[in-house]
Amino acid sequence: MSTEETTGGARDLSRFSINQMTVKQLSMPELVAGCVELGIPGVGLWREPVAAYGLEATARLIRDAGLTVTTLCRGGFFTAIDPAERAAALEDNRRAIDEAATLGTDTLVLVSGGLPAGSKDLHGARERIADALAELGPYAFERGVRLAIEPLHPMFASDRCVVSTLAQALDLAERFPAEQVGVTVDTYHIWWDDNAPAQIARAGASGRIHTFQLADWITPLPEGVLTGRGQIGDGAIDMREWKAYVEAAGYTGPIEVELFNDVLWARDGQELLRETAERFAQHAA
Amino acid sequence: MSTEETTGGARDLSRFSINQMTVKQLSMPELVAGCVELGIPGVGLWREPVAAYGLEATARLIRDAGLTVTTLCRGGFFTAIDPAERAAALEDNRRAIDEAATLGTDTLVLVSGGLPAGSKDLHGARERIADALAELGPYAFERGVRLAIEPLHPMFASDRCVVSTLAQALDLAERFPAEQVGVTVDTYHIWWDDNAPAQIARAGASGRIHTFQLADWITPLPEGVLTGRGQIGDGAIDMREWKAYVEAAGYTGPIEVELFNDVLWARDGQELLRETAERFAQHAA
Repeated sequence: MSTEETTGGARDLSRFSINQMTVKQLSMPELVAGCVELGIPGVGLWREPVAAYGLEATARLIRDAGLTVTTLCRGGFFTAIDPAERAAALEDNRRAIDEAATLGTDTLVLVSGGLPAGSKDLHGARERIADALAELGPYAFERGVRLAIEPLHPMFASDRCVVSTLAQALDLAERFPAEQVGVTVDTYHIWWDDNAPAQIARAGASGRIHTFQLADWITPLPEGVLTGRGQIGDGAIDMREWKAYVEAAGYTGPIEVELFNDVLWARDGQELLRETAERFAQHAA
Repeated sequence: MSTEETTGGARDLSRFSINQMTVKQLSMPELVAGCVELGIPGVGLWREPVAAYGLEATARLIRDAGLTVTTLCRGGFFTAIDPAERAAALEDNRRAIDEAATLGTDTLVLVSGGLPAGSKDLHGARERIADALAELGPYAFERGVRLAIEPLHPMFASDRCVVSTLAQALDLAERFPAEQVGVTVDTYHIWWDDNAPAQIARAGASGRIHTFQLADWITPLPEGVLTGRGQIGDGAIDMREWKAYVEAAGYTGPIEVELFNDVLWARDGQELLRETAERFAQHAA
């Protein structure tokens, strides 16, 4: 019995990429085996599990399985004021760029950082991100890696990412060549924003949609709000609508599903991987 | 010993209004007595405690104490699709307008409502708000009450309020005369938005800043994210910066502090009222 028969019909997974965090209960070999079995062509990786399995070993494992690494998560955290902290952050980002190149992905996702302790200066924090991009953009370009600024939902503005909208992300990105700096379009972070469709068009017009990610919006949000992303189809977001926006803007690349969810993480990883592939096929293929 | 001596210096509370929800552990008479003792001139009321104490009794208590009711919270919840639900919501809002008039306040704050169960249509929900405002605006105007659309933080977009930015609120409000429909400017909901200062100017230019409220942004957010608003000065928001924006836009009215916070609610109400007045004087007077 083929996979298609067991899951009830033909599924188009040709653009699907599973972000590793979605099924973080799977080891790297389990993830790769699951993708091969289900016909999932792409994976988005995170630095910590890559380091745990080994950078070169991961690159080899993925390459030998014929999978594509669509993104590496994540660089960023550029908002420190202290010079030593800033230098350390830049050095860590150079290492992240090197790792992306070794893994064979052309996209490093950036979570830019929140407000330093005690600061109330959002504008200053955003300017420090620009300073960091000016240093890192050329370094990344030389290694075939593009930086993808991810606007995070405004509920993360103080503690995780002062870049809250696609408009803000593009205001930063457009100071640099598109081959160096673009944006991450993630439905979870922008779905509420009626200005986002126009910003997706703006990003597409300058070739700056470097990755497109999906997660659904469900409530109630859990304490800390980090691990409440919904499975595709379970929440308030019309995935086809957002897919249509990025496609109208010229984006034809992989579509990653990236969920952080304690309830999903408590389940069997392979079952969750299969469900996520099915939801992708149903709502976004 | 005067109040000023006990709290360590002269305090300008002339524009301060305490939103009742901030000190919800206080009964209506306790709230009024506390305001009189501390020299707080204004209160923002909520319909439920007003109903519990009695509408006419509340109006008399506040009037006799020489206090001003700056706002009544809240009308709204306009996004239902079902005709019977919509009719009931409109009728409930007419009662809220009547109550505002009886209490002697000119401003009814509106929390517009989230997505109906199963809906993913933010645009449609926003249009249904406009339909409701067209019915309620004239009714309110005839009773000397203005409707103040409150954009809520985008983290409430699905379950509480599909109006997430001042720009969206003004796009709705400007379909109606300013004497009927304006906006609520609340720091907690808009502080992350670099477009908000320009929208405050836009609101001021057409006389649509109907109330200005303060709360600070602190993390981590609690489960459900409703009761995590920070005491003034405890978080990421520069209150003087936002006060300067509304003043530059011509707003000279009361400034309400509205906190929802389980930790604060567990404290002695009069002590919390005194602390809040001090924080107002320190950060926003």
